[in-house]
Parts: sequence; C-alpha cells; structure tokens
Amino acid sequence: MTKVGFIGLGVMGNSMAKHLQASGHELFVYNRTQSKANELVGLGAKWCETPREVAEQADVIMTIVGYPQDVEEVYFGDDGVFAGVHTDSLLIDLTTSTPTLAIRISETAKEKGIKSLDAPVSGGDLGAKEARLTTMVGGEEAAFSQAEPLLKAFSAKVTLMGPAGAGQHTKMANQIMIAGTMTGMVELLAYAKAASLDLQTVLDTVGGGAAANWSLANYGPRILKGDYSPGFFAKHFLKDLKIALDEAGKLEVPLPGAELAARLYQELCDSGYGDDGTQALIKLWKKFT
Amino acid sequence: MTKVGFIGLGVMGNSMAKHLQASGHELFVYNRTQSKANELVGLGAKWCETPREVAEQADVIMTIVGYPQDVEEVYFGDDGVFAGVHTDSLLIDLTTSTPTLAIRISETAKEKGIKSLDAPVSGGDLGAKEARLTTMVGGEEAAFSQAEPLLKAFSAKVTLMGPAGAGQHTKMANQIMIAGTMTGMVELLAYAKAASLDLQTVLDTVGGGAAANWSLANYGPRILKGDYSPGFFAKHFLKDLKIALDEAGKLEVPLPGAELAARLYQELCDSGYGDDGTQALIKLWKKFT
Repeated sequence: MTKVGFIGLGVMGNSMAKHLQASGHELFVYNRTQSKANELVGLGAKWCETPREVAEQADVIMTIVGYPQDVEEVYFGDDGVFAGVHTDSLLIDLTTSTPTLAIRISETAKEKGIKSLDAPVSGGDLGAKEARLTTMVGGEEAAFSQAEPLLKAFSAKVTLMGPAGAGQHTKMANQIMIAGTMTGMVELLAYAKAASLDLQTVLDTVGGGAAANWSLANYGPRILKGDYSPGFFAKHFLKDLKIALDEAGKLEVPLPGAELAARLYQELCDSGYGDDGTQALIKLWKKFT
Repeated sequence: MTKVGFIGLGVMGNSMAKHLQASGHELFVYNRTQSKANELVGLGAKWCETPREVAEQADVIMTIVGYPQDVEEVYFGDDGVFAGVHTDSLLIDLTTSTPTLAIRISETAKEKGIKSLDAPVSGGDLGAKEARLTTMVGGEEAAFSQAEPLLKAFSAKVTLMGPAGAGQHTKMANQIMIAGTMTGMVELLAYAKAASLDLQTVLDTVGGGAAANWSLANYGPRILKGDYSPGFFAKHFLKDLKIALDEAGKLEVPLPGAELAARLYQELCDSGYGDDGTQALIKLWKKFT
C-alpha cells in the first residue's frame, strides 16, 4: 500500500483516483473545485487544502490538471507540490502538457534529490473509467519501475518512452495522428450526407476496410445520434494541438495536417463549442447538423 | 458457371480475375498490355483483342482500369464494351471513377435495355489477393442480386449503397477518410523521429489506443523498413482525391483536409514518386528518409 497524492479530479482524474483507491492505496486528494472530491472523500480519501499539503502527506504525487499553466502553478506555486516534497517523493504528471515543462519539472526534482516522471495518458473518459488507458512515460528507469504498478491501476499499457519529456512527445505524436482521423471523419460524414448516402450503411461499410480507425468507430455513431457530450473536451484537444505545433516548430518539422486541425478546432471553440466533445467538429459543416 | 469478361489486369484486377476463375467461371480477358494476361490465359482464360470482343462473348463484363478517361474509352470507344453488348449483358465497373461517369454508363446501359453497376473496391493489393475486399455498389436491386455472388468471389463485404453513382460516392467518402489517416500517420512519424523517440515503440504504443487506424497498422511498419513498394499507387490515390474534391465542389461541401492531402500527393507525384505506394508520402519530410 502506497500513500498516493492525487491532484486534479476532473472527468479523467476522478476515475483514475478511484482505481488507485480500489487497489488499496491510501489517497490524499486536492482539486480546485472541492466538491468534485466529495465522492472520493466519502470512500475514505483524505482532503488536502493545497497541492503542498498533498506532497507533504503522500509519497507518490500524481497530477492531472487542464493546461500547462495549471501544471506550472500546481508544481511551482507558493502552495505547490515542490513546496511540500520530501526525500521519498515521486512526482508523476499525467497532464498532457509541454515537453519543455516536463523537463523543467524533472530538473527541479533532481536538484531536490527526488524522482519525477511525465506520464500523459490516452483513451478518453471511457478508457479511464474502464482502466484501459495507454500511458506514455518519460523519465529514468528507477522512477519508472516504482511507478509502473501504480500506473497499471488505470492503464492497459504503460510504456517508458525515453528520458524526461519523452512521454509528452509521444502524446503529441498521438494527438497529431488523431488530428488526421478527426478531420477525415467529419469530412467523410459531411460528404456522404451531401451525396445522399445512408450514413449508418456508410459507417458499416467503410469502417471495416482500409479507412478503419478508432475515431470513426467511436465518434461516428455518436455523431449520427447527435451526441456531442465530451469524452474529451474540444478545448483540451485544441490545447494539445497548439503544444504539438509549438514543439514541432522548435524541432523544425512541418505539420500541415495538424495545423489545419488546430485552425478548425480554434474556429469550433470560438463558436462556443469548446466544452463539447471533439466529435463536435462536425458542427462547422452547418448543413450536417 | 457464368461467362465473365474481365478488362484491366493490373495488380488488383489480376488477383480478382484469378478468384473468379478459381470459383469455376469461364473468363474472357482483355488488357492494354497483353503480357499481363499470360498467367490467366495459361490457366484457361480466353484472350480477347478488344473490350468489344469481351462484351460479345461474356454475359457479365467487369472492368477495373486506371483513370476515368480509361473507363470512358473502355465503355464508349469504337471497340468498347457498349459496341459488343447483347440483351443479357450485365456491366460492372470496379474502377474508382467519377459518380458522374457511373451515371452516364448506367443511362447508356438503360437505353440499350441492359443492366449495369458501379462497384469500386477498397482493401488494396493484399485485400484483392486474399479475397477480402470491401465492395461498394451503386445501381438497381435486380442487377445487384445477379452480381452479388460473383463479387463475393473476391470480396469480404458487398453492399448496395444506393442508385447508380452511389458506389462511387461511397468510395470517395472512404478516400476522404484515408486522406486523414495518411497525412496524420506521416506527420506522427516525422514528429516522433525529430523528437528522438524510438519509432517502433511509438507504433506499438499509440497504435493500440485512440490513435489506432488501418493506415498506421499497415503502412507504419512498411515505412520503418523503408518499404515504399505500391500496395496502392500514390498517383492513383491522387486521382481519387481529385475526383472527390471535384464532386465535393459540385455538392458544395468544403473538404480542407482532403484538399491538403491532394496538394501533398501532387507534390509527391511531381517529385517523381507517383509509382510508389501511398506510404511514400513520408518522403516529403526529407529529414525522415
């Protein structure tokens, strides 16, 4: 049994923390909106007033918050994680954030003589609920070995990708791929509708061949039902794409497809749909909805 | 046993014709380059000097050639299919071609009192070889019922999508989706390489989650081996995308992702790689190869 701190109890974090608790670990939790911790606290988790307090009481501190600036505040703020760490602390940031910030956290941790990992996840709300996430880890072997059994509480696959930042880079590669499946999927549906095809038959037919992909299989049926509820927020996908493009700029890799997707998701968020799921991208094709 | 005419014996057509022959049908074949028919003729197929001769001798005439202008020539030329048809003829164009041309063939067939279908396929060289193609059919029920058992000789799935042209429209929707998976895949690999990640580990990790898709699973490993041989020619995918964009223009559906893919594949073909497989798109990222 490990004393696990968990900071960030949104759609993803809540499910992940519950799996850790169900595995028998002692939980110390913090969230900006306290009410989201009620269920976990009711199940025995200890509420902490600040990220610092979480770090003081737990040995492994996991964080999954919204944006890189939130990660920065949670780790480096006056009441942040680094203000509370002790010799045995292992820090694991599960947020999809920048490789640059992951490296900065890793360097600060090293200065303090403690371990840290970047470990963003993929698989959405359902993956978190069913403990089937894919977790992409950056950091050192020793930290990975210690973290692996804990991460497996909510992951189907946990992989060490390389040094600090490599987890975030892998997640960026993942989101760059999804940029293509999401734009392709909505264009496929918009075209098929305009061509007067039966959309369910189209999904059944093209979904089994060379066009098959996870986005089409999972979001296609939701779109046909008019279900735009968030498995994954459109605004968070836009955040991820902006990080990917920023990093790609530093690496001098042109990503025209991801750039296009970012422009479209920006337009979607500017139109007030940022709190919808990523499948709401189809709303830009007004004749469709 | 049916007298089946087969016109167009490229990578796809040769495999498909062999499955028809193996199913016990009597084959009448024609190809612009005669040598490609040698194997089939050796197995008992009858060589014909023109598409007209094929149509005169066979009852069901299948065609799978390169470009819409080739389809036009094969059907409407002086020595074309329509010059040789008889009362019992059923025409099936398996080429990925324009919905407009499919409708024109259908109307001409109706004037002559015969049946016709557009029935483009998806699944590539391997799908054709292993009789696992997805076949998307446009036309009337009676023609479909007659054609279905023959099409199943090389298809895992045969679906009537709607009236004449609906097969081609479905194939266009299919290619629009693949435009997204192909651009996403090459950008994912280019980014991952620039970020110094191990590419095989990246494929293993992201390929099992929300980024999963057929292109990544099938072409990712080929790219890592430097294998750019054509499962599906880059120049033919560019042709498909141009048809899709042209049709989308008529339907007033914006397809920015497919447009981007068409620009990239145009650049690839202009650089002399049109006879490579579609996975050669990665060659535009020069640091990769």
